[in-house]
Amino acid sequence: MNTDWAAALLHPRRVALVGVSDDPNRTSGRPLQFLRRAGFEGEIQVVNPRRETVQGERAWPSLSALPERPDHAFILTDTDKALDALEECQALGIPVATMLSAGFGESGEQGAANQARLADILARGGIRLVGPSSIGVVNLHAGLTLTANAAFAEPDLPRGGIFVGSHSGSLIGALVSRGKRKGIGFAGLVSVGAETDLSIGEICATTLDDPKVTSYMLFIETLRHAEDLRGFALAAAERGKPVAAFKLGRSEEAAELAVSHTGSLAGVDEVADIFLKECGIARVESFEGLLEVMPLLERVPATALPRRGRVGVVTTTGGGAAMAVDQMALRGVEVVPASAETRARLRAVGIDAGEGRILDLTLAGAQYDVMKAALDVLRQAPEFDLVLASVGSSARFNPELAVQPALDAAQEPGTPLAVFLVPDAPEAAQRLARAGVPAFQNPETCGDAVAAALSRRTPRRQAPLDPGGADRPAPTVLDEAQSYALLAQAGVPVAPHVVLGVDDPLPDLPFGWPVVVKVLDAAIPHKTDAGGVVLGVADKDALRAAIATIRDRVAARTGGHRVERVLVQQMTRGVGEVLLGFRRDPQVGPIVVLAAGGIYTELYRDSTMRLAPVDRAGAFEMIAELKYARVLDGFRGAPKGDLAALADAIVGLSQLALLHEGRVAEAEINPLFVLPEGAGVCAIDGLAQVFDT
Amino acid sequence: MNTDWAAALLHPRRVALVGVSDDPNRTSGRPLQFLRRAGFEGEIQVVNPRRETVQGERAWPSLSALPERPDHAFILTDTDKALDALEECQALGIPVATMLSAGFGESGEQGAANQARLADILARGGIRLVGPSSIGVVNLHAGLTLTANAAFAEPDLPRGGIFVGSHSGSLIGALVSRGKRKGIGFAGLVSVGAETDLSIGEICATTLDDPKVTSYMLFIETLRHAEDLRGFALAAAERGKPVAAFKLGRSEEAAELAVSHTGSLAGVDEVADIFLKECGIARVESFEGLLEVMPLLERVPATALPRRGRVGVVTTTGGGAAMAVDQMALRGVEVVPASAETRARLRAVGIDAGEGRILDLTLAGAQYDVMKAALDVLRQAPEFDLVLASVGSSARFNPELAVQPALDAAQEPGTPLAVFLVPDAPEAAQRLARAGVPAFQNPETCGDAVAAALSRRTPRRQAPLDPGGADRPAPTVLDEAQSYALLAQAGVPVAPHVVLGVDDPLPDLPFGWPVVVKVLDAAIPHKTDAGGVVLGVADKDALRAAIATIRDRVAARTGGHRVERVLVQQMTRGVGEVLLGFRRDPQVGPIVVLAAGGIYTELYRDSTMRLAPVDRAGAFEMIAELKYARVLDGFRGAPKGDLAALADAIVGLSQLALLHEGRVAEAEINPLFVLPEGAGVCAIDGLAQVFDT
Repeated sequence: MNTDWAAALLHPRRVALVGVSDDPNRTSGRPLQFLRRAGFEGEIQVVNPRRETVQGERAWPSLSALPERPDHAFILTDTDKALDALEECQALGIPVATMLSAGFGESGEQGAANQARLADILARGGIRLVGPSSIGVVNLHAGLTLTANAAFAEPDLPRGGIFVGSHSGSLIGALVSRGKRKGIGFAGLVSVGAETDLSIGEICATTLDDPKVTSYMLFIETLRHAEDLRGFALAAAERGKPVAAFKLGRSEEAAELAVSHTGSLAGVDEVADIFLKECGIARVESFEGLLEVMPLLERVPATALPRRGRVGVVTTTGGGAAMAVDQMALRGVEVVPASAETRARLRAVGIDAGEGRILDLTLAGAQYDVMKAALDVLRQAPEFDLVLASVGSSARFNPELAVQPALDAAQEPGTPLAVFLVPDAPEAAQRLARAGVPAFQNPETCGDAVAAALSRRTPRRQAPLDPGGADRPAPTVLDEAQSYALLAQAGVPVAPHVVLGVDDPLPDLPFGWPVVVKVLDAAIPHKTDAGGVVLGVADKDALRAAIATIRDRVAARTGGHRVERVLVQQMTRGVGEVLLGFRRDPQVGPIVVLAAGGIYTELYRDSTMRLAPVDRAGAFEMIAELKYARVLDGFRGAPKGDLAALADAIVGLSQLALLHEGRVAEAEINPLFVLPEGAGVCAIDGLAQVFDT
Repeated sequence: MNTDWAAALLHPRRVALVGVSDDPNRTSGRPLQFLRRAGFEGEIQVVNPRRETVQGERAWPSLSALPERPDHAFILTDTDKALDALEECQALGIPVATMLSAGFGESGEQGAANQARLADILARGGIRLVGPSSIGVVNLHAGLTLTANAAFAEPDLPRGGIFVGSHSGSLIGALVSRGKRKGIGFAGLVSVGAETDLSIGEICATTLDDPKVTSYMLFIETLRHAEDLRGFALAAAERGKPVAAFKLGRSEEAAELAVSHTGSLAGVDEVADIFLKECGIARVESFEGLLEVMPLLERVPATALPRRGRVGVVTTTGGGAAMAVDQMALRGVEVVPASAETRARLRAVGIDAGEGRILDLTLAGAQYDVMKAALDVLRQAPEFDLVLASVGSSARFNPELAVQPALDAAQEPGTPLAVFLVPDAPEAAQRLARAGVPAFQNPETCGDAVAAALSRRTPRRQAPLDPGGADRPAPTVLDEAQSYALLAQAGVPVAPHVVLGVDDPLPDLPFGWPVVVKVLDAAIPHKTDAGGVVLGVADKDALRAAIATIRDRVAARTGGHRVERVLVQQMTRGVGEVLLGFRRDPQVGPIVVLAAGGIYTELYRDSTMRLAPVDRAGAFEMIAELKYARVLDGFRGAPKGDLAALADAIVGLSQLALLHEGRVAEAEINPLFVLPEGAGVCAIDGLAQVFDT
């Protein structure tokens, strides 16, 4: 097993360009041109069997023909030849290769064959692969622009501390050009491609102890290899290196039809969202936010407890600050006024803070001394988690008036500080960015980044993810009584019930009337549709009749299916009802979902989730995140529900992640009645699925 | 009455600067400096009683001392002197003045006194005022930079066709600097200040027939003088000049606690939102969207019917386009794939469109011919309302490859075209903007502007707004029976009911049992809280008992209030229940609100509104906008509700805008039961308020 790949990935001594074109403007010709221009200090080896020279360099006919073994090969050929080249790398002991070509996986029959051959090569070991479909690997501090992305023709590529892992190859170019304008620099950028071998998490992890890498930006299209990503994120958090992510696919959720089922309530994007959050990764909503959030993350610590964040705002322009305030408030950030004590301190330095939510210096004018004095007071005030300085027109031509005091103040200890620039003020923005001061050029980006930074949580450490199910045979569906037994073992109270054979003599029930009678048969999951439920059964005679009704109706509606057993359950009423679900997500592993019950679930998608298991504090957080929680907490004079018992039930269900050797694939309680305070909760219907092995 | 003000506002021949400072860097010194620099062709007159010369110009001690009468005075002095100057303007017959100073209205006792004096001067007539609190008036085509906003120190102010009306003075500067970077030019910009006299609508209206003004941008803090704004918007629509607006205050709604009442369901920002929509004004969500939306509005016509909009996307970069697609989809825009016919046409020009939702040219590469051919086909395809070309890294250094074909295509007839630039590409952006091609530099702005443009409606012409109520005495609250009579007159069906005196002998009821009994007293609006409701009354004896219970309970809970009458109403059940409300908003006049009933109203704010009256088509649109509509339309196998009757009830209630000489101030039905299809709807509770005069 070759362990040199991590070093060779971003710090190769010798890179081979396989299939590089003589035309420096063609995609497969660019890497050579870029490497030379960036001043790569290592050796560049050119492999091209059809030419003696390529762009003036001596070309070798194959990797094997090279006089010395490269430690990183960038394979630029078509798919077929790329696989040949990869095998050659393997044979030669080259520790890592990056593959540009697409044509795998989803590209029809040939793609599947290619994918199979690729998997086969990788299974033999000895080589690690970036890609396929990777536009390349860049380490700006080493002059390694090993990429075909045209944006790296940029002169003076912006160097800095940010390391980028991106599913999109084109976006690493967009980040570099946009970063340059904003004064934001990068340590490295990797287009991770299809992650067939090396994952985005593994790639980022190789840089964890590189002092030139101070933070991480992820551009995520689809969550893959979640375990690697989490491992990396936790290690980055330990080292105090923040991670920000932009993830595509929020609209899938918006478009998705809501249906009452744990699976779809926890949509792909929603699962990714909670996963990133629990990894301590700050997810931004906007592309510009991804670029601008980092200095804020470096200054605002993640919190263990949930936080909306309190921001104090000082401005030289009312309208400009109002835009930023609006955007922060829309995202749940609290813009709080200065306290009486802080206002007194401001008055002591000659600033009348007035009574408003923000400190408007418009009348005092944009002056260094006024802004600096205001910031000095606000940054010592305990009521803020962040101080935002909004700077108007002066920022464009006179940054010395109101931008410079922010820049100076940011070098001193105190509450973190950020700046919102109201006019187009590129020089001020660059100056702030280079000094590491968080600076925003649009109110929406300000709101996005501030909300992401202030709500960032310290990562939760828990049992290793166990996605399960992906390679396992389909799980077995338990019947309702078996499901109840499983729930009861997990500590979730279930409604009193007995199981009766349809032909058995009726016993005395161990609970009172009225009862509900339900067909008990794992083959009939939609009991009501099948005519298998009778409600409000008041006595023994009615029970006998209900059983007969169910037997007859189910037979009629299912083409003769014979009902063997029914479940008889005491009827009860709660203060409200919720859906509580557990499942193993194929990417992130066990999750627990809580949703408003009844038609709320479907109409309003009022739901929340966590990675499982959760503790009691996490369960109470989940409850608080539901709008429906108000119904359970004494709504319009109604009795309060037993929220403590609900929290216990959430914790209990989430323990299915660990119980039974991880064999529980899915469990859904719908509804779980929440009874009045002190009376607990009660599962009224439940369905679980377990893996047999 | 002087009618010259409209010409003198933006095309003065002679401007007087009252109180202008000798220091060109002071706020009150800037206008003189700026006017000179911009090459104002008219005459500049300087008024300053304390100096012989100001910035080298001869200064006159007062307006009266001027050798010739100015036609526009910019008053830069403190509040007191400003009022004196305004009176002098009035005496001299100067048609329009712009006032910088604040210190009116909300600034304490002195502010109120100033406001009163200002109102008094204006009431005398003969002069129109911009402001107070206006940073000035700019007409770039006339070199009129009559403003104290520091941003107008900008060299080469960007000239173009956009006219800006802004409540914020500082933002006109931000728009100019940001527009300059984007290649967006302005005809004029007015800081409208407090709108004490001239409103934003009146000011914009003066330019309607100016051929140099082709479109309008509004920056709105608070909706005022809605009638003027609507008049202007309708006139602009007639002339084909689009109007875009950014409005502050979305977060007020987000922060507002939802309560079950028509008033707060129609929050200030929500009312403004529907008002702008019905005026045909495109409201954008982002500040950058305000700047970038205009070329799109000039190309995409407003529609009479509701439309989500269908967009076809072609891209040279998958990741970049995916961001834009995500942002459009999040805002309800449909990104639709090319039809089979369109794909065949693409193949005929050598482009394989594949099966995806977007046309990804990544493999074909960024080439002029490929992009042009693709755009030519897509712009002739009937399935799109807009074609978006997303351009990757080549846009930065090689706009001739994929930006130029879009620019060229946009000059030819076909479906409107827009461009999303993935990298930082300022030159391409400016080139596109100057050619009038819609171009976006962030995916979020693209989504915002595209959604705003595609959902823009042709303005609705209706009866003049009648806010009413603002200066009227408080309306009288009707009791439930009187309210029902009013509703019945408006054509809204009410549940069968009779009114009984508590001591009257019980008559035979003209409807069946069970019934509900409710205290009938306009002084007790919260009947349930007062113990004044008994449900499920099954027969005459129970009715008698219920009346006694109500009488006793109400007396006990209200400190002896004597119940005189009760309302007895037949009990009924619907497929679902809604809240239907009408009120006269102090700004925009009559509105009608529809909301999901019961606890949905409060928990999920599932509501929609229109200016009243609405027609049947508008009523059906409102129903369709509720998420709750699914419950009324055969949810989970339940019977369908009578949506036609619901639409009729909405139309009927909205007619209260016109009935009774506009004396109905407010009417709320909560709940209105929606019965099964064919059975109608039925008001179960209602409360109306009417003005006595």
